[in-house]
Amino acid sequence: MSNPGTTKYRELTNTTVADYLSGQSSVAPHLGPNASEWKVSEIGDGNLNLVFIVQSNQGTVIVKQALPYIRARGPSSPLPLSRAFFEYEATTRHSERAPGTTPALYHFDKDQAIIVMEYLSPHIILRKGLVLGNQYSRLAESLGQYLARIHFRGSDLSMDSASKKMDAALFAGNHALCQISEKRIFTEPYYAADLNRWSSPQLDDVVQCIRQDEPLKAAVNELKDKFMSNSQTLLHGDFHSGSVMVTDHDVRVIDPEFAFYGPMGFDVGAIIGNLLIAYCSQAGHADTNDDRSEYSRWILTVIAELWSTYEVEFKNLWLSERTGELYPKNVFPQSNSKESLNSLSRYLTSILADSFGFAGAKMIRRIIGVSHVEDMTTIEDPDLRAACESRALSIARTLVLKRNSLSNVQEAIKIAEKSNSMSCEKSR
Amino acid sequence: MSNPGTTKYRELTNTTVADYLSGQSSVAPHLGPNASEWKVSEIGDGNLNLVFIVQSNQGTVIVKQALPYIRARGPSSPLPLSRAFFEYEATTRHSERAPGTTPALYHFDKDQAIIVMEYLSPHIILRKGLVLGNQYSRLAESLGQYLARIHFRGSDLSMDSASKKMDAALFAGNHALCQISEKRIFTEPYYAADLNRWSSPQLDDVVQCIRQDEPLKAAVNELKDKFMSNSQTLLHGDFHSGSVMVTDHDVRVIDPEFAFYGPMGFDVGAIIGNLLIAYCSQAGHADTNDDRSEYSRWILTVIAELWSTYEVEFKNLWLSERTGELYPKNVFPQSNSKESLNSLSRYLTSILADSFGFAGAKMIRRIIGVSHVEDMTTIEDPDLRAACESRALSIARTLVLKRNSLSNVQEAIKIAEKSNSMSCEKSR
Repeated sequence: MSNPGTTKYRELTNTTVADYLSGQSSVAPHLGPNASEWKVSEIGDGNLNLVFIVQSNQGTVIVKQALPYIRARGPSSPLPLSRAFFEYEATTRHSERAPGTTPALYHFDKDQAIIVMEYLSPHIILRKGLVLGNQYSRLAESLGQYLARIHFRGSDLSMDSASKKMDAALFAGNHALCQISEKRIFTEPYYAADLNRWSSPQLDDVVQCIRQDEPLKAAVNELKDKFMSNSQTLLHGDFHSGSVMVTDHDVRVIDPEFAFYGPMGFDVGAIIGNLLIAYCSQAGHADTNDDRSEYSRWILTVIAELWSTYEVEFKNLWLSERTGELYPKNVFPQSNSKESLNSLSRYLTSILADSFGFAGAKMIRRIIGVSHVEDMTTIEDPDLRAACESRALSIARTLVLKRNSLSNVQEAIKIAEKSNSMSCEKSR
Repeated sequence: MSNPGTTKYRELTNTTVADYLSGQSSVAPHLGPNASEWKVSEIGDGNLNLVFIVQSNQGTVIVKQALPYIRARGPSSPLPLSRAFFEYEATTRHSERAPGTTPALYHFDKDQAIIVMEYLSPHIILRKGLVLGNQYSRLAESLGQYLARIHFRGSDLSMDSASKKMDAALFAGNHALCQISEKRIFTEPYYAADLNRWSSPQLDDVVQCIRQDEPLKAAVNELKDKFMSNSQTLLHGDFHSGSVMVTDHDVRVIDPEFAFYGPMGFDVGAIIGNLLIAYCSQAGHADTNDDRSEYSRWILTVIAELWSTYEVEFKNLWLSERTGELYPKNVFPQSNSKESLNSLSRYLTSILADSFGFAGAKMIRRIIGVSHVEDMTTIEDPDLRAACESRALSIARTLVLKRNSLSNVQEAIKIAEKSNSMSCEKSR
């Protein structure tokens, strides 16, 4: 993980990648010596970065380089290169806190904002798998364990308070990425922001209703307050189904460049919200062979099992690794006393309430904000797509408004199952 | 405010203070040139620092120097000199956000951990005034305005999110002082920590009860969670009645060396809790001329008026200065719309609930933890003192446990008025 010192930043191209990599000793074991024979292709399909795949007859690596601007928007929308540093630092911590859940990191270059990492194969992006209708037997358990481990071990339940404060201070430097979330998730969907888009004309009325939905806007700002001021743990920060790579046997988490110290429910809610979008989109992917009803039910079981795994793993860690200043051992000497477990239960209830709220906020922004998702955009019939989206908005609004009164994940799942289209009456 | 670069730290003494000051051009206007004629005396009565008063025939200044250890404990209890830096930085910000509320700063020397500041006269420490039975007509209004202004203007309601995040990151460096609060306020009173002391034998049973009071310990850890992870604004951080200096016409706030980004209720609760201690102590200061009953009622009116002023001033700022990313103008264009004011009301309700909780936690720690307060320690009759303390503990416990169900400050005041001794039955 050498850092070659301050050298001028240069964007990689297909023709310069091999030359760059051949100078890095940490990469050599993975690709071998014959740089001239390596195959390079740019495969980045995200909004922000360059991503190259580099293949030799010895192996394959991924090269990810941050651009000094938002790729989807161009050089007029600058974004700090430091996000590569925060992605590297977050991946390092998360791979220690939840071993086996990230790609292996081979090389980091701070000045060039380059991370070279393991090429995951035959993994595919979870979101694509959800559109295809693929079931993954280890998905829920893996995601629940990953989140519980990174959340608990990065919090005041585990870390000493000085170390956590200084690490949170380091990640405060990632404010430009936090600001994107503040605007895209919590602000722009609720007024006539320039970049907003939605299925028009089908959702025109609903969009207007949401912008005038005062209880919803107030609740979203309460969630935003937590997003901006609650440094509970080092989050992934962008934990949607496009940040997860899966096979039948393996689950890995990528792209934590939005990492910061924030509320645990923001990660849990991000994946629950994106799974609920996938759930609502299934009617749009049905065909004569498969009406996707069984698959839809499977998605809901993933949500339930993800949360139950999170609870179980969080409890394991509460009992065995509570070494921090919060609920400390000298005040709660018996970890499995009724009182200790009551406190754990309240802590988890609070995370779940936050998760429902953030799930709803994440769903809304993917349907009426600037960034949309393949689950919906790949539905070709615009009326069918809008119907799926409207149902997702209806679920989302209910989750945001009822987040503090739902007592378990099954209640949220019932809301999803019973949901219909978003109606304007509902939000007036 | 010159910083003379890295020079070796040296503790000031009565004989070296004048020499040090005569080399500082920023101090000259306040003391004049004849250093040999200045009178120097050390007056520090706090736990942590050296404080000198320096008088010349032209004026008087205060010289405060941090020691590399806790003064009350000695060199075996190290504490970073950087607390002087954080006090200087916090005073600078707070004096901008609430003009006229702090002493003027004349000189800061980071390496020597020295702040030279205005000598306040004829001000006395509020806590001493409360023991004496003095009423101050502008006290409640001044404290409420000060808190509302520093809280609002240091929060995401006012600041841009990147600036606030980076300033919070700077103050994260004050973690050693935060850790003192974590231990002293939220941990040690709830187990048999070595340094704890209390009126013994009178309170022995009560102390044992509190250490086994599981609902109380759980609630205190929920408050501690907020203290450790909620970076709502730049707090004073140690806002008890010993950090306020008063005359009949003026109120100033000193000693923000515990400053950090934390929950607003922590400051509001600190002063409410200390006023409630003063209230409970009055029976111990009664004499044949004055049973202190009128004065006790006055203290409760200060609490009520402090909070009502805070609400009014916070609302003024909400209407006129809401320039941050939270409850932003583009989503809530009409600041005085019903919906905007409903959000404000919920925001204030949440601060008040936190304040009740932190008030209770602060009261408990001053009675059964290591640091006690003059309000109680100056009561000579040990039984009378213990009775006053027991009443304070009873109020404190109720405030912590009922913090989220009390709907206004009057309900808290009624609890204080109706309170009796802390009974063990209560906490089982």
